[in-house]
Amino acid sequence: PLHLYVWNILVTGTNRGIGLDLVRYLAEKTNEETRIYACCRDPEGDKAQALRDLAIQHPQKIQLIKLDQSNEDSISCAFQTVSAHIGAGGLNLLINNAAIAKPPIPGLLSDTNKQDMMEGYETNVVGPFLLTKVSLSPSSQWKFTQSAVINISTLGSSIEKLPENFHAAQLYSYRASKAALNMVTRCFSEEFKSQHILVAAVHPGWVRTDMGGEQATITTQESVLGMINLISSMSNKDRGMLLDWEGTIIPW
Amino acid sequence: PLHLYVWNILVTGTNRGIGLDLVRYLAEKTNEETRIYACCRDPEGDKAQALRDLAIQHPQKIQLIKLDQSNEDSISCAFQTVSAHIGAGGLNLLINNAAIAKPPIPGLLSDTNKQDMMEGYETNVVGPFLLTKVSLSPSSQWKFTQSAVINISTLGSSIEKLPENFHAAQLYSYRASKAALNMVTRCFSEEFKSQHILVAAVHPGWVRTDMGGEQATITTQESVLGMINLISSMSNKDRGMLLDWEGTIIPW
Ligand SMILES: NC(=O)c1ccc[n+]([C@@H]2O[C@H](COP(=O)([O-])OP(=O)(O)OC[C@H]3O[C@@H](n4cnc5c(N)ncnc54)[C@H](OP(=O)(O)O)[C@@H]3O)[C@@H](O)[C@H]2O)c1
Ligand SMILES: NC(=O)c1ccc[n+]([C@@H]2O[C@H](COP(=O)([O-])OP(=O)(O)OC[C@H]3O[C@@H](n4cnc5c(N)ncnc54)[C@H](OP(=O)(O)O)[C@@H]3O)[C@@H](O)[C@H]2O)c1
Repeated sequence: PLHLYVWNILVTGTNRGIGLDLVRYLAEKTNEETRIYACCRDPEGDKAQALRDLAIQHPQKIQLIKLDQSNEDSISCAFQTVSAHIGAGGLNLLINNAAIAKPPIPGLLSDTNKQDMMEGYETNVVGPFLLTKVSLSPSSQWKFTQSAVINISTLGSSIEKLPENFHAAQLYSYRASKAALNMVTRCFSEEFKSQHILVAAVHPGWVRTDMGGEQATITTQESVLGMINLISSMSNKDRGMLLDWEGTIIPW
Repeated sequence: PLHLYVWNILVTGTNRGIGLDLVRYLAEKTNEETRIYACCRDPEGDKAQALRDLAIQHPQKIQLIKLDQSNEDSISCAFQTVSAHIGAGGLNLLINNAAIAKPPIPGLLSDTNKQDMMEGYETNVVGPFLLTKVSLSPSSQWKFTQSAVINISTLGSSIEKLPENFHAAQLYSYRASKAALNMVTRCFSEEFKSQHILVAAVHPGWVRTDMGGEQATITTQESVLGMINLISSMSNKDRGMLLDWEGTIIPW
């Protein structure tokens, strides 16, 4: 299992939805020394009010970081800022949570154009790829022991299971990006196996957020508590897998 | 099985490698009425000499079409030209063969940048996506019966099998793009099931081409004859699957 000595955690997309509750419950459930780098596109804007309120409740633990993961310079800059804070301890946990679904659900074929495809890949795959790459590069501060990278994927990324849910929501761009994210997850898992960094993909469930919609079956709290429980008990068998928030394996 | 009455075939990336031999053996193995629309980026350039020589041997069958699939306008334009030729008969077979691997094999993590990721997706996924979308749109000439879309994928797209071949060639960008292409393949397969269009992905084998390299285990001829045999005998069970050139299923 992941026994994290000093939890230095970075989470993306934390101003709303699942990311906001990830920060909330990680702050509640970790020890005093934990530091959470809560990334969002506009930490000073109106859309980050709830996150700022949360940070005020945990002034020692939560640090807001500006990050637009569709922008390469923003990724370098955010990681530089984080590196300056964490020093030699390094990151223990990177949660790539931020993502977009464009066009929105159901994402019909007729509504999906080249820009939707390219932007979906840029944000959902290339952003996490670059952030992981910079975090795990030899020059970075990453502590090469008992650490994890968790990529938030989706049941909709399963090519195997597609016929079960395609007609409810086509989501060409989103699905293609998340299948690619799964591949990148498994590549990183192989690449960093020898450095004891566990890399896995997690499906958060169908969650009531702006993206999940009001019909969704679980709350952000249920999803996030499930995922935190799962992540803290992950071991070698979970390496390079896609698991749902309750720990069930989803086939590729 | 696919009993194609009039074979109207479009193949991409036909000036060299697997695509060139696809055109060669499709021309040899089809009846008089078959028309093959052989696409390449620069039909008049030096790199298309072998394709032009082949077209001269089959003046009635092979028609060269200019197509750069990383360019949206080029895709529309190419399909318009093809539509004007085929009229009401429509396309029966679309083979999305063209692709790039950047950075080249082994495609190390340290050598892979944002541009490689974006260009790999644009060419290997968004190009085939847009070409299939325009070919299968209600306004197109596509004949909705006994037709097929074949996307050339790769064993390296299998997330399941990744640990078996990752350390031989990392290929982050290429693998991510081909996993996404598999997802798009399966989406189209579901979308066009009711119109009797069979959509599948095929791994051509490890083939001696510019991309496959000199160490590759089979020739373009072996690969292409295997794939033509496979495609002509495909039936419902192959719908939305990833198969190798000999017909063996590859897991996602
Ligand atoms: N909700 C579900 O049912 C469900 C199901 C399966 C998987 N998921 C996955 O769970 C994760 C979180 O989803 P959610 O439901 O919480 O989504 P959400 O409510 O739409 O929130 C998305 C978050 O991502 C951020 N974001 C988007 N683009 C960004 C960019 N370029 N740079 C930085 N941040 C960016 C958003 O920031 P802004 O406020 O600035 O836009 C927001 O914080 C996603 O990976 C999603 O694919 C969700
Ligand atoms: N060879 C193997 O061992 C192997 C194994 C698994 C899968 N595959 C797959 O098999 C297919 C064919 O591969 P190959 O080995 O024949 O590759 P190749 O020798 O490198 O040829 C690639 C072809 O794609 C064309 N192309 C590249 N970008 C294009 C664009 N933007 N628009 C239009 N055409 C473009 C190239 O045209 P230009 O000459 O203009 O560049 C060329 O005709 C690919 O999908 C590849 O991923 C190959």
